[in-house]
Amino acid sequence: MKRPGAPLALPTLIARKRDGGALTDGEIRAVIEGAARDTIPDYQLSALLMAIVWRGMTERELVAWTLAMIDSGDRLRWPKLGGPKVDKHSTGGVGDKISLALAPLAAAAGLYVPMMAGRALGHTGGTLDKLEAIPGFRTSLAPAAFGRVLARAGFVLAGQSARLAPADRRLYALRDATATVESIPLIASSILSKKVAEGADGLVMDVKVGSGAFLPARARARALARTLVGLGGRLGLRVRALLTDMEQPLGLAIGNAVEVREAIDVLRGAGPADVRALTVHLGAEMLVLGGRSRDRAAGARAIEAAIASGAGLERFRLAVRLQGGDVRAVDDPRRLPRARHARVLRASRAGVVTGVDAGALGRAATLLGAGRLQKHDRIAPGAGILLAVKIGARVARGDALCTVAFDDPSRERAARPLVAGAFRIQDAGPRARPLVLETLG
Amino acid sequence: MKRPGAPLALPTLIARKRDGGALTDGEIRAVIEGAARDTIPDYQLSALLMAIVWRGMTERELVAWTLAMIDSGDRLRWPKLGGPKVDKHSTGGVGDKISLALAPLAAAAGLYVPMMAGRALGHTGGTLDKLEAIPGFRTSLAPAAFGRVLARAGFVLAGQSARLAPADRRLYALRDATATVESIPLIASSILSKKVAEGADGLVMDVKVGSGAFLPARARARALARTLVGLGGRLGLRVRALLTDMEQPLGLAIGNAVEVREAIDVLRGAGPADVRALTVHLGAEMLVLGGRSRDRAAGARAIEAAIASGAGLERFRLAVRLQGGDVRAVDDPRRLPRARHARVLRASRAGVVTGVDAGALGRAATLLGAGRLQKHDRIAPGAGILLAVKIGARVARGDALCTVAFDDPSRERAARPLVAGAFRIQDAGPRARPLVLETLG
Repeated sequence: MKRPGAPLALPTLIARKRDGGALTDGEIRAVIEGAARDTIPDYQLSALLMAIVWRGMTERELVAWTLAMIDSGDRLRWPKLGGPKVDKHSTGGVGDKISLALAPLAAAAGLYVPMMAGRALGHTGGTLDKLEAIPGFRTSLAPAAFGRVLARAGFVLAGQSARLAPADRRLYALRDATATVESIPLIASSILSKKVAEGADGLVMDVKVGSGAFLPARARARALARTLVGLGGRLGLRVRALLTDMEQPLGLAIGNAVEVREAIDVLRGAGPADVRALTVHLGAEMLVLGGRSRDRAAGARAIEAAIASGAGLERFRLAVRLQGGDVRAVDDPRRLPRARHARVLRASRAGVVTGVDAGALGRAATLLGAGRLQKHDRIAPGAGILLAVKIGARVARGDALCTVAFDDPSRERAARPLVAGAFRIQDAGPRARPLVLETLG
Repeated sequence: MKRPGAPLALPTLIARKRDGGALTDGEIRAVIEGAARDTIPDYQLSALLMAIVWRGMTERELVAWTLAMIDSGDRLRWPKLGGPKVDKHSTGGVGDKISLALAPLAAAAGLYVPMMAGRALGHTGGTLDKLEAIPGFRTSLAPAAFGRVLARAGFVLAGQSARLAPADRRLYALRDATATVESIPLIASSILSKKVAEGADGLVMDVKVGSGAFLPARARARALARTLVGLGGRLGLRVRALLTDMEQPLGLAIGNAVEVREAIDVLRGAGPADVRALTVHLGAEMLVLGGRSRDRAAGARAIEAAIASGAGLERFRLAVRLQGGDVRAVDDPRRLPRARHARVLRASRAGVVTGVDAGALGRAATLLGAGRLQKHDRIAPGAGILLAVKIGARVARGDALCTVAFDDPSRERAARPLVAGAFRIQDAGPRARPLVLETLG
């Protein structure tokens, strides 16, 4: 136990973690407070983070680390909201616009969804960047405004408040610059500290697996899912984690405006089958977790009903309006930004599409301007890739594989090899891939 | 191969090392140049250093890393000196004052010894701090003065010039603060970059083993010795490495003034048997390495002759004078600083001394003021511990075990448990320990 007032011997503490030992609760609290208050230098934090990537954390360390992150900032509570607060979070994928339709549908089916979302990161898109493709839409909300939108629309999609888990904010920036992101305990504590702080009672985690995923290997993704479920239990947050396929992109649209359009299609009862299926599946899990549906089949029916009645779309329109967005762009997606140019990639042979590499297409979309190469890059909201085929499609030579939308021809040239290399066409195809691979928790 | 002018993608490079991959020569050069020029932030360097502690380096990486460190600063050459330039370096021990007598004796026997020494570090003493116990002695010499003392006295004991291996200076400070010191490739490159830069042709490495050593475990010490010999060969520096015992302190004196006095005793033909024996042994290795003696026995005779003739003492007096020190303190060691108080620790039982813990006594001496707890602490030059017994001594109850010299009674009280706990007395004793355990290279 650290004596109050005793100076924290950082090198000794880092050495213990480096040598495979564990940190005490008091030490962890002092480290996280030091990170939040900027009293520990970055270079000691980054060495400690790398030692944690190396050695991991015990369950006890992980709980203490996450609790300290939560306590480093505000903790939202929603006493006036009558219903269960259930969130969904994805580890990030290519073409993953699920949140945009899922949150209003879950709200229409009786949940409150206080969803704090993120920006494009690496080759994966960001929900906030997508929403900002809607003219006028504000993703940065003061806490009071966040609560108002949540109370009225039943959901809110906005950026993380600087006052929630500020230690995570500092650590995350440092991890990004020092190759210390890929640690299961650090990922789990970063996600769950924010979800607990935002006041959720339950969380459905969509852990992606495959080339477009942050942790491509299934074993690592499963380990993260297990850690999230276990840690959630220790924090009083019910977590259900699904491993879902990210070998190929979700849906047909990759980019910002194009993904908003695809999400609106789902809310209108259309949209690609996989986006719709995953939206319904995750929504059903949320409803079961929040106690609004007795099982997943009942939950799926409730989500389907919210699509069919247009209640989900109505919630989405309401939130867009409350957050300053132009509702006409929801009603007529041709009002969303468009890229200046388009180029079609065609099949060089006939056959069956056996691979559509999500990782390569994610990197290509980032190059086109759908994501950021540098932290302060501006997003090109109309840029992206619209797939014409998915795995299993039969194509003739010359058939369109995808359309690349871009503003800057030099970026399109840079992305071209990645796009062309993403499609694999063979004589015979694989069987259809399951979308949800495993469910834990 | 890194394209010239291409920005160094530090996170990618750190991630490769983190995942067990190797860095290219160009990447290593860019990292070391960035460290020397302060263009890479500390937090990225420290994450990379921790990844290197974790994953190690390939032989190729280690050579590139060390060459880049050498090239980050000046490289001294001694074309006007007629004889071989041979240095000795120790990984640091408790009571290790060998350099003080060894350098002048090796010089008297025909070598040039351009010895750049260090400060007290952790629980081990520093040659520079010891020398500064001599009133007026200057350890900080400009390059020209360094060369003049070397040419005239045949040896020089001074601090490392800021212009030699400046990358090492920055990395070392960072490693000390981030628990990334204990890496064999990082230790080896730090030592040898400075030795090559100072212009040595040969190096005898005294790698300590035991509780007072920096790497206590013999296997780790041997691995460092092997790495030093192999890396030296790749850099054109002949290295001979000895593993020597640091389970108990060397000699009887631990501190600054007391160690200078013990070294002068050796130069006068007296002094504790182990200090004298190790001085002769290492000097003999240096003479063989420099081609001045055909084998170790001949080298030992030459060092013994330099003691017997007083030639070594004369060289020491000369260097003290050239470096501004008071030669009267060499001739009459009572002129060296003394602590204000002394306290004798006595045996609580009769028996044979079976343990004198070098690590504990080193930490105790540091607490007394012989070393530094914080970087900017002032050294108390008279403080220290004078042993009355070594392993194997028979003692009666009440016999003195050591005398603790101190200025500040509160520090003595703080050090007391460490001192008392350092001595083990049992009914029967171990056989005498060999001083030199292994020789490599």
